[in-house]
Amino acid sequence: MSDGATRLYLDDLQVGQRFTSGTHALDEAQVKAFAAQFDPQPFHLDDAAAQGTLFGGLAASGWHTAAITMRLLVEGGAPIAGGIIGAGAELQWPTPTRAGDVLVVESEVVAVAPSRSKPDRGIVTVRSETRNQRGEVRQVNTARLLVFRRPPA
Amino acid sequence: MSDGATRLYLDDLQVGQRFTSGTHALDEAQVKAFAAQFDPQPFHLDDAAAQGTLFGGLAASGWHTAAITMRLLVEGGAPIAGGIIGAGAELQWPTPTRAGDVLVVESEVVAVAPSRSKPDRGIVTVRSETRNQRGEVRQVNTARLLVFRRPPA
Repeated sequence: MSDGATRLYLDDLQVGQRFTSGTHALDEAQVKAFAAQFDPQPFHLDDAAAQGTLFGGLAASGWHTAAITMRLLVEGGAPIAGGIIGAGAELQWPTPTRAGDVLVVESEVVAVAPSRSKPDRGIVTVRSETRNQRGEVRQVNTARLLVFRRPPA
Repeated sequence: MSDGATRLYLDDLQVGQRFTSGTHALDEAQVKAFAAQFDPQPFHLDDAAAQGTLFGGLAASGWHTAAITMRLLVEGGAPIAGGIIGAGAELQWPTPTRAGDVLVVESEVVAVAPSRSKPDRGIVTVRSETRNQRGEVRQVNTARLLVFRRPPA
């Protein structure tokens, strides 16, 4: 958070700005470990059990996709000064995330709204698509982020 | 998923139905472990660093709250036959989740929409509030769940 030179304040953000994250390679062990801790359902834990379900094979928890997406945003996919502070988010999972996916997050600023009551901040809406190496969209997250103005010099 | 007798199909769900989960006691070690893996920002990792931020002290990642909420729903907080399969979710984090919180999820069915094209299923919208032991709302999740009809006998 200390690299202020490369991080963006509310003043620096405008609709249409785009960011691309690094990548995250997901494997079966990660899928099962997350599921065991937070989403212990057969289709997230066991490939054989998942075959007979809607998923047709082992699928990552949507919350795992969301958590990996956050990691990728924090590591540079959304270079917001002061960090990524979410007030809310709207998630869609159009296709299941799979072991073997190499995930990347492409984000776009879709709204910038200075606060009426607090002049030092605003809400920036960022739409982030999480895709795999074949361009398949695994998640769309439209997040409302609290972003501060650049402090007076 | 095999205890069909106590799990609910689309046919069994109606607007206004409510469910209450078990509880999850969150501690500082859990907060920091999740943050280190998925949301490595100072206010989720270190109490001293968090003091000078908006959070005023160590706060759990919102994605951690979301993941714990899912665990509580899977463990009985939303007894859906075939499991909890989310098509999407809308999250709000009105207050930061803290170490020491004992979380519980109260859910209410807010819409039931049979599919027009696929007669064996529908979308059920469930609004889940995640609260701590003092009733403070840490998250509101309005989720769209894919729910199947009871199979023919």
